[in-house]
Amino acid sequence: MDEITIAVLLYDRLTALDAVGPYEVLSRLPGATVTFVAETAGPKRTDTGALALTADAALSEVADPTVVLVPGGPGQSALMDDGPVHEWLRAAHEGSTWTTSVCTGSLILGAAGLLRGVRATTHWLALDQLAALGATPVEERVVVDGKVVTAAGVSAGIDMGLTLAAEIAGPEVAQTIQLGIEYDPRPPFNAGSPSCAPSFAVDFLRSQSRHVLQGG
Amino acid sequence: MDEITIAVLLYDRLTALDAVGPYEVLSRLPGATVTFVAETAGPKRTDTGALALTADAALSEVADPTVVLVPGGPGQSALMDDGPVHEWLRAAHEGSTWTTSVCTGSLILGAAGLLRGVRATTHWLALDQLAALGATPVEERVVVDGKVVTAAGVSAGIDMGLTLAAEIAGPEVAQTIQLGIEYDPRPPFNAGSPSCAPSFAVDFLRSQSRHVLQGG
Repeated sequence: MDEITIAVLLYDRLTALDAVGPYEVLSRLPGATVTFVAETAGPKRTDTGALALTADAALSEVADPTVVLVPGGPGQSALMDDGPVHEWLRAAHEGSTWTTSVCTGSLILGAAGLLRGVRATTHWLALDQLAALGATPVEERVVVDGKVVTAAGVSAGIDMGLTLAAEIAGPEVAQTIQLGIEYDPRPPFNAGSPSCAPSFAVDFLRSQSRHVLQGG
Repeated sequence: MDEITIAVLLYDRLTALDAVGPYEVLSRLPGATVTFVAETAGPKRTDTGALALTADAALSEVADPTVVLVPGGPGQSALMDDGPVHEWLRAAHEGSTWTTSVCTGSLILGAAGLLRGVRATTHWLALDQLAALGATPVEERVVVDGKVVTAAGVSAGIDMGLTLAAEIAGPEVAQTIQLGIEYDPRPPFNAGSPSCAPSFAVDFLRSQSRHVLQGG
């Protein structure tokens, strides 16, 4: 099995599950090495303030990853201007086999210029922001367009990870990983997307969308 | 809304998603404060070695949490002997409204003496270890017995978090949280439990169960 290097971008005020869901899947691929990377190495505080995830490497230390993964979260809004993160993403994307995102991580990919003409998705509350970045917004849980794989909000990163695991190592490996993490989801409600959720939940989150997407 | 304090136990070689899945749900409860706690405060390296989660507080700094959450992972095997973690768990359980676990975290609760006569679950590969700890093993995704709520392997913590969110704050809040994290799971395969997974996956993981559960 070839070596697979996976770089997960961290930044302050990311949403932890966006990064940890697909990491938990992809780190189980045979031959995979995961590196959490950030503009500067060190602990990054997630959106609630209660948890820090540590980036072991600075951007300059991680070149040519096989898989680039960009999580979303309120801190995304501070990463929409050109700068070191965009430069690193563009360079990493040039050599990557897969460039991926979860939730509003796709807005960062888009701002870096990597989604022009690409079918992509994001958190349902942010879907209307993709077109302005040159992407074609798609209301699906996981969207594969060439080597770009984007996932819907937060928890969708687990489904994205399994989709990608199957692309990289085949369906048998992906199924074995799924069983290893016992991913046999049984949500107690049918409320996980705006198409099935009760209208009070959709309306409430729409009214709070700035807070939900950007925190504060 | 009353204040809800949630203490998530961290330790070296835990499985990140066990902790982060329910944290992502429960931290969104109105009035909730989450504290990541460990025997000593500081970063704890998860099972793959690639990620550290930071515990902001030592055990002695967190008394009387409303919710105690114990994740699982290979590091569980080092927490089966009596010591400061068990003492803290027993004291926290005495005053808690809910005492909870994900995956092999229930084995730690059991070793601390908190599951005697309690219906409980764990990762499917570890289910046969619960009885020796005095628990009644149950092959369900989320098991509620009085104030003890245990979840099956790794990803089951998200379902546990939503079940608990509904118990604490009602189904409308839980549904709104579910929509906020867009938890509308679409696994690309039907392989998440031994009852539905292909036999090659079940057989492979059973043959590797020591490695899967304890790592190394």
